[in-house]
Amino acid sequence: MADHKWQINGQRISKRIEDLKLCSEPSKGVTRLSFTKEFQSGQKLIEKWMNEAGMTIRIDNLNNIIGRYEGLRTDAPVILIGSHLDTVIDGGKYDGMLGVISGIEIVNVLFENNTRLENSIEVIGFCDEEGVRFHSTFLGSKAIAGTLSEETLAVKDETGISLSAALIQLGLEPHNYQSAGMDAKKLLGYVELHIEQGPVLETEGLPCGVVTGIAGASRFSFKITGFAGHAGTVPIPLRKDALAGAAELIVEIERLAKENAPIVATVGKLQVNPGASNVIPGEVVGTLDIRDTDVQRKNDVIDAIFQAAIAICEKRGLTFQVEKIMETVPTYCDNGITSAIESAILSNGIKPVSLVSGARP
Amino acid sequence: MADHKWQINGQRISKRIEDLKLCSEPSKGVTRLSFTKEFQSGQKLIEKWMNEAGMTIRIDNLNNIIGRYEGLRTDAPVILIGSHLDTVIDGGKYDGMLGVISGIEIVNVLFENNTRLENSIEVIGFCDEEGVRFHSTFLGSKAIAGTLSEETLAVKDETGISLSAALIQLGLEPHNYQSAGMDAKKLLGYVELHIEQGPVLETEGLPCGVVTGIAGASRFSFKITGFAGHAGTVPIPLRKDALAGAAELIVEIERLAKENAPIVATVGKLQVNPGASNVIPGEVVGTLDIRDTDVQRKNDVIDAIFQAAIAICEKRGLTFQVEKIMETVPTYCDNGITSAIESAILSNGIKPVSLVSGARP
Repeated sequence: MADHKWQINGQRISKRIEDLKLCSEPSKGVTRLSFTKEFQSGQKLIEKWMNEAGMTIRIDNLNNIIGRYEGLRTDAPVILIGSHLDTVIDGGKYDGMLGVISGIEIVNVLFENNTRLENSIEVIGFCDEEGVRFHSTFLGSKAIAGTLSEETLAVKDETGISLSAALIQLGLEPHNYQSAGMDAKKLLGYVELHIEQGPVLETEGLPCGVVTGIAGASRFSFKITGFAGHAGTVPIPLRKDALAGAAELIVEIERLAKENAPIVATVGKLQVNPGASNVIPGEVVGTLDIRDTDVQRKNDVIDAIFQAAIAICEKRGLTFQVEKIMETVPTYCDNGITSAIESAILSNGIKPVSLVSGARP
Repeated sequence: MADHKWQINGQRISKRIEDLKLCSEPSKGVTRLSFTKEFQSGQKLIEKWMNEAGMTIRIDNLNNIIGRYEGLRTDAPVILIGSHLDTVIDGGKYDGMLGVISGIEIVNVLFENNTRLENSIEVIGFCDEEGVRFHSTFLGSKAIAGTLSEETLAVKDETGISLSAALIQLGLEPHNYQSAGMDAKKLLGYVELHIEQGPVLETEGLPCGVVTGIAGASRFSFKITGFAGHAGTVPIPLRKDALAGAAELIVEIERLAKENAPIVATVGKLQVNPGASNVIPGEVVGTLDIRDTDVQRKNDVIDAIFQAAIAICEKRGLTFQVEKIMETVPTYCDNGITSAIESAILSNGIKPVSLVSGARP
């Protein structure tokens, strides 16, 4: 493995990215939704490249494609590498595809050099991560992880076709979805190369980084209620301006997030009522989304935000109401794998930056 | 006039307010739009009360009703007292009507005491101040002031009926609108009693105050542009969050207005784009409405706000664009009249509070 004659073929990766990009509906970016003819033709390309890399191929009952490169010890746990093959509408050409194509590339290099590892490698292209059609994300990887249910198979798209019907149309047997499940004990680990969905690497001028975990997200809907009034007749000290209160809160949310980096907090939606230029806002409804891998820190910041909100509203004669609408727990990446990636980056003379993946919905 | 046996009949005023309130479409409040049968029946009541107060009545070609109580000197300038008789949709029972009914009451008391002043008094009920039907305000008072034009007579309501057609249907001659004009030289002054459209008097527990002027208003539309991004992947210091910038600006606008009381500044409309809970706002579009009787102070505060906006946006990598969408100049009330009102309030043992009228659109 330390033989420096072995070289990943970057040009081949780039060429394949361009080829796979063409499997798209007419679109500003790449639009390859799961269970469409565009998806199926993309999958065919992946199949061809897996073949060229000496892999045996199977497609499971959720339409995940898996190429296997046999190891020397058939009882050794499998190294799983991959990403998703579907896109959002007008997606980017690297999103997902890079992880599958670079997985194939690794195997290709081993195969070209007549080399097999102790462990088998499986490269996987997941079928439906984005959930554009069925509004239900991670369908492919859920089947692999054994967390899919019959309930999910019954969800319907906007034309009334169910997920199971869509899979049956592809010649698959969705009700045998459990056969797609992988036994965690038989896996050595899972590695995915993914384009960064934020600006950190670009800002630092770095080609890559190490993801140490997936942030947990808490999402809230909040309402600040004041008293609407005429913009010309109510002196500032007598106002109960819901937007002025919300503004003070948003500034405070940003300050608390900055102080507790790398936590991120976002007010993405804000509706101002009644919303007329000559009326003091009587009500503001907004969302707050907070993400961190450190659950304790996240909860502390949430508490601090709500305390600030209550204090701001009390001072201004406003009322503050809040409701949790989503909560996901963080997931930490395996230390052994992240250390190995870090060493590999270092050995290429690159500063190994740690990143948190925060991009789940 | 200093004879204390003469007493304004408050109960009569209240009774008439209740009677006039009934001239309304079925409504939560009072809905008496100009040129409707409800308006005409309200006008009939006013006509009756003017008659009882010894006035001679005329209705001008814009449907303003004017009752005249002759003075001792026919060449002396006229004291004009009044307000509007139309309402907004679901308006309040005092808005406008109080000014007309209390004007009639003054004359009534003089008439009951067989007294005439040197000057004639005219009490006027304006026909269309609110402009609900034709979206063109102050129609009646514009005709009196000589600022109405043929162009305005041609504006149409939502069913396609023009203002002049509506007036013709009432038996009036709108194209003779100039005959409604009053010569300012023949007027001693204009006095209007109006319910406060803000909370100052109620907050101070006072029954009345003196309006010293009508604030000038400047209205702007502004746009702050940043860069949208995923709420989970962009660290706070790398964000160009248009809403966070707008929030900082709104807090600053409020601070500057407070510092420069009695100026008022309002951000009444704020649209956040794209407006999804998991997306950092890339654009915010809002309105800013600023009112003051002091034009210099208003302009200084506007300058300070825009300087703050530019500084905030520069610091945050945002861009700030602004466009003026309205500007009205302030109007000052006559010092002689406001002093007389102040003295009258003082002589009743009440603290004379000065107010600015800010309630034009």
